[in-house]
Amino acid sequence: IVHSGASAALVDKGNHRHFMQKEIYEQPMVVAQTLRSYLRPLEEQVALPDMTFDLGNIERVVIIACGTASYVGMIGKYWIEQFARLPVEVDVASEYRYRDPVLLPGTLGVVVSQSGETADTLAALRHMKEAGVVTAGIINVPTSSMAREVDLLLPTHAGPEIGVASTKAFTCQLAVMAALSVNLARAKGKISAEEEADIVRQLIESPAALNEALSHDGEIEAMAHTVAAARDVLYLGRGPDYPLALEGALKLKEISYIHAEGYASGEMKHGPIALIDDRVPLIVLAPSGPLFDKTVSNMKEAQARGAQVVLISDSDGIASAGEDAVATIEMPRVHPLIAPLVYAVPVQLLAYHVAVAKGTDVDQPRNLAKSVTVE
Amino acid sequence: IVHSGASAALVDKGNHRHFMQKEIYEQPMVVAQTLRSYLRPLEEQVALPDMTFDLGNIERVVIIACGTASYVGMIGKYWIEQFARLPVEVDVASEYRYRDPVLLPGTLGVVVSQSGETADTLAALRHMKEAGVVTAGIINVPTSSMAREVDLLLPTHAGPEIGVASTKAFTCQLAVMAALSVNLARAKGKISAEEEADIVRQLIESPAALNEALSHDGEIEAMAHTVAAARDVLYLGRGPDYPLALEGALKLKEISYIHAEGYASGEMKHGPIALIDDRVPLIVLAPSGPLFDKTVSNMKEAQARGAQVVLISDSDGIASAGEDAVATIEMPRVHPLIAPLVYAVPVQLLAYHVAVAKGTDVDQPRNLAKSVTVE
Repeated sequence: IVHSGASAALVDKGNHRHFMQKEIYEQPMVVAQTLRSYLRPLEEQVALPDMTFDLGNIERVVIIACGTASYVGMIGKYWIEQFARLPVEVDVASEYRYRDPVLLPGTLGVVVSQSGETADTLAALRHMKEAGVVTAGIINVPTSSMAREVDLLLPTHAGPEIGVASTKAFTCQLAVMAALSVNLARAKGKISAEEEADIVRQLIESPAALNEALSHDGEIEAMAHTVAAARDVLYLGRGPDYPLALEGALKLKEISYIHAEGYASGEMKHGPIALIDDRVPLIVLAPSGPLFDKTVSNMKEAQARGAQVVLISDSDGIASAGEDAVATIEMPRVHPLIAPLVYAVPVQLLAYHVAVAKGTDVDQPRNLAKSVTVE
Repeated sequence: IVHSGASAALVDKGNHRHFMQKEIYEQPMVVAQTLRSYLRPLEEQVALPDMTFDLGNIERVVIIACGTASYVGMIGKYWIEQFARLPVEVDVASEYRYRDPVLLPGTLGVVVSQSGETADTLAALRHMKEAGVVTAGIINVPTSSMAREVDLLLPTHAGPEIGVASTKAFTCQLAVMAALSVNLARAKGKISAEEEADIVRQLIESPAALNEALSHDGEIEAMAHTVAAARDVLYLGRGPDYPLALEGALKLKEISYIHAEGYASGEMKHGPIALIDDRVPLIVLAPSGPLFDKTVSNMKEAQARGAQVVLISDSDGIASAGEDAVATIEMPRVHPLIAPLVYAVPVQLLAYHVAVAKGTDVDQPRNLAKSVTVE
């Protein structure tokens, strides 16, 4: 009943110890490959495949997915609302399909799935189509059921993903979601040619930023033991980095079996801070920018209660708030738009090295299947 | 900077060991007291206080809160969408206020807060008012800042809540949210007089159902040691019981410092199931009804991997799926509308008895303040 999207026998690990590691390292290449289909560098414009409906008529967006792909949806909500000023609803497929959701005319239904076969997401897609809503799918396997059934296929070009814990599919999904967000913004007349050109330049630079993020692999490996020794880990982020905190926690759970949980920074004081003591590492995702000080203030509350902070930020952020951290991981300074793409790398590498330190089966973690084709 | 909404010196614990226990036991009374303001039993109608705007003009609802109150918002989303067929957006206040949200005309902005002073929620309320949106507040302290600033005050009559972990304020907030949902449904012409009368009868019976739930206190106390010994606990629920799973996990975290996490049942297989082994209790909230079999199938996947299941359901549910559970807690059979109110009791009692077994400071858990008036 459960099968993998691609055969491991046809793909080898090259110089890498695990498929997951290989796939983390492939990201600059496959994100560039994916973006090539969605950017017109000369015109400095974003482009989508030909479509049978007019994006200018879209009044609202619903994004449905499961697991890691649902965090792409949450980040997409921040982007689409910010750029296109359209209201966006995000839900996990297993909830959405059973709750008799309100689907208004003018809705674009978006599904996100690596395999294109995830049972709950496929059922949600069919539910939206029956309700007469136009649909788009950000999907990695072009021959999948979802790829065939959506009105607008937005392929990711991540190549076969063998590691059960999704990495390169996630960042490629984000790249496509960014392109969709900017296209919606243009179709709704909410973005100027200059703003669009600026975002296109940022997206073109993102593979180089991913490479720079990967260059910190050694530091992350060196500090992984502090996290590997923990029973509980919390991840914090604000805005588009909040879903990334959820993704970091999910990745660590999936392959190291450490109970990690992601929180919106400002929510920690409404309960979860009770968990904090000096045995709980707190991974803080905080690019410098308008939300930085708010996140740092939440981080300091936790530090005052003993939390061992790992601060992932850029050089400015680390210079201003890294002093009391047990470790810092420096990311390139990037536009807030591409920060979730770039900051995905250190959370993936951290989960990877912690799992290797613990000796778990990184590519085939217990209890999990690559593609969940049961409900 | 941080202060409690009411002085403990003015309220005593009566025969109870802790304020939290007393407040759990007050729920049938204070929920009845709260409902009295929102129900016309003779007319079998729901009623709201006089208001300066027309609910019939509302086209969408945004609900903003923090912590436990945000789960009231999530349950409200299920109810308002189901009954009134209006799209509902729920967000935590610390995210909402900083993300430049899209606020369309015809929006009703709802804030939920025990104290009425929660800093992030108050800022979100002011943001909505500045955007020209009509606002309502489900608030326990009638003299609070939020109570003064909302266009429509929907008071809860829970009385002073002293325990830092919210219990009776939560169920009273749910009772008011149910009344608001039905009122919106009537104003939008989406509910018949018969359906409304049926819901009113269910709500009138809810205090008796809460009493019946409380009568299982001894069983919950007797099985609390199995949870108290755990390092990690997962809670599962579907539909309106999913936010209750989040609330159960938050309560346990807050007062017992056990790392508990709530999940939508269908999401567990997309990652968190990797955490499951025979040391992880799984608390399953599953009233019998249309979603029951789906939740049981997720529960069985976890049991096959060693999970120690505590099934909270009604007699039908326990008869059909309780066989392999390490413990079952029987709830009265109730209408799905009031299930979240009734099922709140066992999750509160479980957290309470686990904390007592662990010897933590139930009413003043470490690191937490009753009312968070800082950002």
